[in-house]
Amino acid sequence: MTIPVAILGATGYAGAELVRMIDGHPNFAVAHLGAHTQAGKRAGSVLPGIAGQLANMTLAGADAIIPDAVALVFTALPHAAAAKSVAKALALGKKVVDLSADFRHQSPAIYQQAYGIEHPHPELFKQAVYGLCEHTRDKVAISSLVANPGCYPTSMLLPLIPLLKADVVHKESIIVDAKSGASGAGRSAKTDLLYCELNESVKAYGLPRHRHAWEMEEWAEGLSGAAIRVRFVPHILPMGRGMLSTLHLSGSEVERWHGLLEQSYRHEPFIRLLPLGELPSTAGVRGSNRCDIGISLLGEGEAVIVSCIDNLIKGAAGQAIQNANLMFSLNEETGLPKHATWP
Amino acid sequence: MTIPVAILGATGYAGAELVRMIDGHPNFAVAHLGAHTQAGKRAGSVLPGIAGQLANMTLAGADAIIPDAVALVFTALPHAAAAKSVAKALALGKKVVDLSADFRHQSPAIYQQAYGIEHPHPELFKQAVYGLCEHTRDKVAISSLVANPGCYPTSMLLPLIPLLKADVVHKESIIVDAKSGASGAGRSAKTDLLYCELNESVKAYGLPRHRHAWEMEEWAEGLSGAAIRVRFVPHILPMGRGMLSTLHLSGSEVERWHGLLEQSYRHEPFIRLLPLGELPSTAGVRGSNRCDIGISLLGEGEAVIVSCIDNLIKGAAGQAIQNANLMFSLNEETGLPKHATWP
Amino acid sequence: MTIPVAILGATGYAGAELVRMIDGHPNFAVAHLGAHTQAGKRAGSVLPGIAGQLANMTLAGADAIIPDAVALVFTALPHAAAAKSVAKALALGKKVVDLSADFRHQSPAIYQQAYGIEHPHPELFKQAVYGLCEHTRDKVAISSLVANPGCYPTSMLLPLIPLLKADVVHKESIIVDAKSGASGAGRSAKTDLLYCELNESVKAYGLPRHRHAWEMEEWAEGLSGAAIRVRFVPHILPMGRGMLSTLHLSGSEVERWHGLLEQSYRHEPFIRLLPLGELPSTAGVRGSNRCDIGISLLGEGEAVIVSCIDNLIKGAAGQAIQNANLMFSLNEETGLPKHATWP
Amino acid sequence: MTIPVAILGATGYAGAELVRMIDGHPNFAVAHLGAHTQAGKRAGSVLPGIAGQLANMTLAGADAIIPDAVALVFTALPHAAAAKSVAKALALGKKVVDLSADFRHQSPAIYQQAYGIEHPHPELFKQAVYGLCEHTRDKVAISSLVANPGCYPTSMLLPLIPLLKADVVHKESIIVDAKSGASGAGRSAKTDLLYCELNESVKAYGLPRHRHAWEMEEWAEGLSGAAIRVRFVPHILPMGRGMLSTLHLSGSEVERWHGLLEQSYRHEPFIRLLPLGELPSTAGVRGSNRCDIGISLLGEGEAVIVSCIDNLIKGAAGQAIQNANLMFSLNEETGLPKHATWP
Repeated sequence: MTIPVAILGATGYAGAELVRMIDGHPNFAVAHLGAHTQAGKRAGSVLPGIAGQLANMTLAGADAIIPDAVALVFTALPHAAAAKSVAKALALGKKVVDLSADFRHQSPAIYQQAYGIEHPHPELFKQAVYGLCEHTRDKVAISSLVANPGCYPTSMLLPLIPLLKADVVHKESIIVDAKSGASGAGRSAKTDLLYCELNESVKAYGLPRHRHAWEMEEWAEGLSGAAIRVRFVPHILPMGRGMLSTLHLSGSEVERWHGLLEQSYRHEPFIRLLPLGELPSTAGVRGSNRCDIGISLLGEGEAVIVSCIDNLIKGAAGQAIQNANLMFSLNEETGLPKHATWP
Repeated sequence: MTIPVAILGATGYAGAELVRMIDGHPNFAVAHLGAHTQAGKRAGSVLPGIAGQLANMTLAGADAIIPDAVALVFTALPHAAAAKSVAKALALGKKVVDLSADFRHQSPAIYQQAYGIEHPHPELFKQAVYGLCEHTRDKVAISSLVANPGCYPTSMLLPLIPLLKADVVHKESIIVDAKSGASGAGRSAKTDLLYCELNESVKAYGLPRHRHAWEMEEWAEGLSGAAIRVRFVPHILPMGRGMLSTLHLSGSEVERWHGLLEQSYRHEPFIRLLPLGELPSTAGVRGSNRCDIGISLLGEGEAVIVSCIDNLIKGAAGQAIQNANLMFSLNEETGLPKHATWP
Repeated sequence: MTIPVAILGATGYAGAELVRMIDGHPNFAVAHLGAHTQAGKRAGSVLPGIAGQLANMTLAGADAIIPDAVALVFTALPHAAAAKSVAKALALGKKVVDLSADFRHQSPAIYQQAYGIEHPHPELFKQAVYGLCEHTRDKVAISSLVANPGCYPTSMLLPLIPLLKADVVHKESIIVDAKSGASGAGRSAKTDLLYCELNESVKAYGLPRHRHAWEMEEWAEGLSGAAIRVRFVPHILPMGRGMLSTLHLSGSEVERWHGLLEQSYRHEPFIRLLPLGELPSTAGVRGSNRCDIGISLLGEGEAVIVSCIDNLIKGAAGQAIQNANLMFSLNEETGLPKHATWP
Repeated sequence: MTIPVAILGATGYAGAELVRMIDGHPNFAVAHLGAHTQAGKRAGSVLPGIAGQLANMTLAGADAIIPDAVALVFTALPHAAAAKSVAKALALGKKVVDLSADFRHQSPAIYQQAYGIEHPHPELFKQAVYGLCEHTRDKVAISSLVANPGCYPTSMLLPLIPLLKADVVHKESIIVDAKSGASGAGRSAKTDLLYCELNESVKAYGLPRHRHAWEMEEWAEGLSGAAIRVRFVPHILPMGRGMLSTLHLSGSEVERWHGLLEQSYRHEPFIRLLPLGELPSTAGVRGSNRCDIGISLLGEGEAVIVSCIDNLIKGAAGQAIQNANLMFSLNEETGLPKHATWP
């Protein structure tokens, strides 16, 4: 079985990963590539990494008609633009995995608070499922519209949810100090993102409240039942890919935490819990769909959890494909790398 | 069909790539991992990128017995050490792809000149085949011992051989100015290879004559019939992977060169010839088994050819697997990535 | 007036910066370079950045006699080794700035807890002054032995002390999430520090309790009177220099904090407080002796403070020279760069 | 004596270095900062590395009047724009060091060939002096308009001129394979220059004929009398600063070459010739005004010369200040760093 797939926003960094990974997927095939500003060009002229016939595909414009045969659409577009494409694709009867933020929230009010605009299609909220596969796979499997989680929320929710469910974390003092490679900032021609501006430097950004903080709080509660408040401080690092979230936590029974995560995730193919006291690096997950998690106990009621993902894979394209596998009743692991491309 | 495979020298950078790629290969399976200095450890404790059962394998020592079921051995060991392991594996009836330099030369004298030691097993020379697949695949297919080409020679021979065969290159003035990521220097704890010594810096090394110069000259002649002399100047760059060779060439009929390469390689799955005048970057091949080639004509009888590979894949582990596919009558492309992991 | 200076441990990264900066200092002159393992070599053969006569100096061994004329000794040696050299230099009547950790603590017990060894010269503790110039300059000026603060404590104490003095920070919940370039890990030939291991990666290290946590707690109290407890989580980043500390703080009257720092530091030449809400990057301080500080108010009683230094300058060699200027009654700013080498 | 200085184009990378270095110069003082697109902003808001009063200066627009007191103007503007500002400044009686390409050529025809536009002020050509200090310092000293050499030509001409003068280099086969950090490409918001596009990658660019090739040929002849032809292939590397030019040369008496360079440059404060057979790295010159040169003899009549500079210092701002020192009869070394900021 080969399922034809459309990728809208194919020339951004997450889009590029989708193109590569879908082409290597045994059950999906790239049938349509959309790119707003690059329409009309050869895919290979904008995506230097792809070769062969794939590189010869022509990039379609925003308004191009998606072929009938396409059963699945990935939207890797800026927010608001994504919602419009999603609505169109759903109207044509296609399943959609949306990598933007447009369907990650359940309330138009929170969306408006986080993104500063009125949502163009709030009527679609009720059919969207939040696609954090390890925790929502049953709903994803029967959904036509999956909101792919943000990279920061993914790295933070995976280690946190089992602990919140067990009610062992102080919900008022959750601090997430996150570090991301530059690819998370996208492919726009901005002076701030030039090589020489980011090279050999680190900085915090997005304060006092980064958009992903709302998503973290909404889904921590949505998936665990526990209302939390997050102090989220993201940083941008001089590297291309990779995301590390350091969770500074207080709570009770910290010596049980490792076991709780072990119990939750021991059968998960894409989560690796390191032995207690060992902490992961982003090099260990780069190029893979894994989330690596480590815990260090600091003392009475205090612990640090470190969580690493490849922001473009488990934090974007990989998780999107994991969701798509579920939506099409494929083995969830299909086409997804478990090992990192190291070094 | 699943063929059990042994990888000796599994904890170096090329070895690590072999482990990852063999585990993802549909017809090969990792059955034995050898590591001289790390013997006894869990594979995952030394190779941060691998996960799951693979990570739980125990690294075997240099003298460990390779299981009977193993039909194929990859040796990714230092030169001289490799030859000894190769001899043992052949004696046990196994096929071998050797990633070291030990069987890349046809004369013990040249080997001694290049590597400064007497070869421990010169009697095996006659059965070794140089595994530059695009040019020697028929011999590779019927061989039990394949010498996997060096990374620099791979990047230089692929664009050069068709031109040498056509006798359009001045054979006395071939200049190869090559640039390599740091992973090419290996994983030894040397001050020279520390992050802070290589970061934000570039330097030439290995002059006046790098070992690979002999290999380049020997196989340029061996594969094209034309005796050449190479001025080879390698540089080390502040990046992990990737190799770019700039060939400064003179010759005749330079306007025909692009066509000659096009004709030679148009059906090759792992060679991408860019349109005339366009030049590749290493980002376009990183993570893939491709060699990307571009030509710029400078003027009357002068051209620059730029050739890019991922030094750990097409320059090491990937080409080794390409050879192994041939040796076991598999489709040559099996398990090998055509697209780069970009960005 | 030119004061002859000895630098012991001249070939490490902090030592190299001392050599460069002392040579450019109008009142100090390099008279003696000590290097334990590199003794007998030309300075220039081990320190690639220096040129001219300086490069022709011979590196002296650990037991070499420091010339009589030398009035000031910088010790940039590993802990314990430093203490022995310090004792010798003091016995010869020289002033000493020690860049190691050996005299940063006031109690042998805490030293032993942090460094795991008995202190070789606890009798010298009483004469050592902690050289955080902005807060201890009067004592430094009349001292013969200055303990140069650690890089992490420098970046954390400078923003914190004025707030602790004003009693507006919750002393029980101080979280310091710090990010350092690789030069902070030193110049030893360790596999963990190879280019390819650190490149394109980030990780936390030193948990559950990094040595600098004791220094932070001791001097936060020593300089402000307020006993605090720190949860300190350092990370190593893929860059050579630069250190950014993110302080996650709670407290009272957060809207006054910026003013408190403004008031404390407005006349300090090497501290730059950014406008409220703006946060610094390490690029803004690299190559300078500055500490840049920014504050973002998160909400009721919560704030993030970000502090950036060049770990080899304000976090090591620069601060050491600032201390030495004070010890010799020179203008404190002499020979110290206020602007960063950007980009 | 303090000479007030204007810097036009102060917010580009070379301009930023001028601002920093002039502020640290004992005889020059920053009196006016011009910035076309950033006019009206605080200098510190666009140049993150500068602090103090300097950061509080307001950036003036292109048409702002340069204060009367200013005696020296540095123009670090795009070509063509530079010429217009130069003409204005000269008309006001000021001395000018122009860092653009506008006055590096002696013929409007060559300029037009290299830059594709008609020169706006060819009448000024006759008064411009090419400011390669080591070879033209006498003319520079009495000039009012100095054309600061390009970074690539600087790195190539310094090692080559003494050999051309001695007539020991084959003039028809000079190959310059150059490698530059990304800062050489400037600070424009272009997708090609984004962090993620350049990171972990290397590529050649500017072929078949980069603009600097004309400058190399013109001044090789202008300064040595020998007409040469250059095959120049520049590459961009994943680092911020630094430039390494590899010269692949043939000629006669190669064993004399090291001595010829030694003789030419032994008294030059900013040129370091390494011992024969040793080759420099860009880390050894980063942050300094030095050019480091090494020679490796390959065999009969063949040699490789490697030359390293910091492209923003010896290749731009530093050399510009060296020229200015000469123009104002200051010691040529004033305010210029001889040691690199290493690591």
